[in-house]
Amino acid sequence: MAQVTLDDIRAAAARIAPIAQRTPVWSSRSFDQQSGVEAHFKCENLQKGGAFKIRGATNFLYSIPEQDRGKGVVAFSSGNHAQAVAIAARSLGMMATLVMPDDAPKSKLEATRAQGAHIITYDRFKDSRERIGRQISEETGATLVPPFDHPWIIAGAGTCGMELMEQAPGLDALVVCLGGGGLLSGCAIAVKAMNPSIRVFGVEPAVANDYWLSLQKGERVEIPSPPTIADGLRTTKPGVHTFAVIQELVEAVLLVSEEEIKEATKFVLSRMKLVVEPSGAVGAAAVLSGKLPPGLKRVGIVLSGGNVDMEVLGAL
Amino acid sequence: MAQVTLDDIRAAAARIAPIAQRTPVWSSRSFDQQSGVEAHFKCENLQKGGAFKIRGATNFLYSIPEQDRGKGVVAFSSGNHAQAVAIAARSLGMMATLVMPDDAPKSKLEATRAQGAHIITYDRFKDSRERIGRQISEETGATLVPPFDHPWIIAGAGTCGMELMEQAPGLDALVVCLGGGGLLSGCAIAVKAMNPSIRVFGVEPAVANDYWLSLQKGERVEIPSPPTIADGLRTTKPGVHTFAVIQELVEAVLLVSEEEIKEATKFVLSRMKLVVEPSGAVGAAAVLSGKLPPGLKRVGIVLSGGNVDMEVLGAL
Repeated sequence: MAQVTLDDIRAAAARIAPIAQRTPVWSSRSFDQQSGVEAHFKCENLQKGGAFKIRGATNFLYSIPEQDRGKGVVAFSSGNHAQAVAIAARSLGMMATLVMPDDAPKSKLEATRAQGAHIITYDRFKDSRERIGRQISEETGATLVPPFDHPWIIAGAGTCGMELMEQAPGLDALVVCLGGGGLLSGCAIAVKAMNPSIRVFGVEPAVANDYWLSLQKGERVEIPSPPTIADGLRTTKPGVHTFAVIQELVEAVLLVSEEEIKEATKFVLSRMKLVVEPSGAVGAAAVLSGKLPPGLKRVGIVLSGGNVDMEVLGAL
Repeated sequence: MAQVTLDDIRAAAARIAPIAQRTPVWSSRSFDQQSGVEAHFKCENLQKGGAFKIRGATNFLYSIPEQDRGKGVVAFSSGNHAQAVAIAARSLGMMATLVMPDDAPKSKLEATRAQGAHIITYDRFKDSRERIGRQISEETGATLVPPFDHPWIIAGAGTCGMELMEQAPGLDALVVCLGGGGLLSGCAIAVKAMNPSIRVFGVEPAVANDYWLSLQKGERVEIPSPPTIADGLRTTKPGVHTFAVIQELVEAVLLVSEEEIKEATKFVLSRMKLVVEPSGAVGAAAVLSGKLPPGLKRVGIVLSGGNVDMEVLGAL
């Protein structure tokens, strides 16, 4: 498969424009005071479907050849990708089947169901969602929509970084959460093509450090299913495409503790008045807890999603 | 005192630009589906200090003659006005003394104290905050910053409506929460001057209906301290200036129940991913619960503030 370029991302932006929103970029004096940088937050928590995932999913579904659309799509996901596929499928009049873990946040299960999608749950510690997804695809002819490791998904996700560069010119660095790596690799391609001197960082929960380990080792490493509160970042192994891009374009992967993730989630909620899910707050967590190298001034941070159970928020 | 005009509001906008933010306007497909209108939310919950109050307070403090600034300012407030006065005073290097009810949300007391202001608490059911405020003003020479009933406050608050008209052109109607009436009267002046055919509505908690009663009677009516969850709308009597403007320019005051306020606060939080305080959600509550007259399509709604205790959110 060909490498994703800024042109692919521009084409994706045009394709997804009728569905995905151009989310606002916002700043916070309290955050800047506490972190020591001038932060510009890309508010994908305000995105349709509550997360950046609609970008990749929409670009993917719009790229499926006409003759295959009638057989529908199938996807496996811890939640936001599922919801995004459901929304995109509905808008194209396609059938969607979603394979979701039975302990996914209730808010995500409900929101996906509300989009008219068919949901199949599985035990994340026993079953393989990939296997279930592939089986459904083979039996029904539905197109499998991979959660992150595909050029169409990466190009769609990259539109987030492209928009941020337009909305907050002159950034020194970009900080992006890192699960499967679709968002980070897409954004890295976009922003590095627009400004080669920008420094790009990924952020993983320390207990879900598959990328960090893989970059150390120079090859894709698999870890056991990680017990992080950031449920959207529970991938166990980097993707093939995403790993290659991240190896090339990302300066470092920063690690944050579960406590730092919770603190950042609370900070964004109580001080910045934005609902963010723990997975979407790891970028803010890394910057708030001083994980960035010194000398950076103007920093873009993606708040990647806001789909958090109200009970989880209440507990925080 | 002369009546406030759009020119005064334009002058206020220039004056407050270094301090107040131009907050984003955002929409929500779920809200539109549930309410049947196309809503455009002015996100003053993302404003500096967490509420629209910074607009009026900053315009007021910047309008105090140089020679009086050294004596500082004093204000009484259920919270957001106090915090706004504290921020504006700090930015001008002025001393601020704030008289706040002892049952004000903890988040508001703490945020005000963090701005370096001196805080005096009182019992909202026994003492008169006006009396305490006036006494301090007389003893120290500090300028009293009224919470709403002053042309400088009204003109400052009106900048919110002016911005919304620029950000979401072609609105049929504007819906604004109604406590003392500073925000509603200022916004009404701005939007009616910019488009005389726009229809303007205020929203009060049904248990805090001092404006609704006053408009029925044709004169300012006082009610007992109302027990509404919307702590920012607990004023007991319309202001002189604000009432005159609202009588002239506002089509109707809509009343919402405590349950409708709570539901709207939850909706904005869980579906729109924005933290809003109950006082700031009454506009959304009125539209969600169908209180608007039929036939309105494109509706502006001010989310006036986001300063809510995390415990209150947790309880919701």
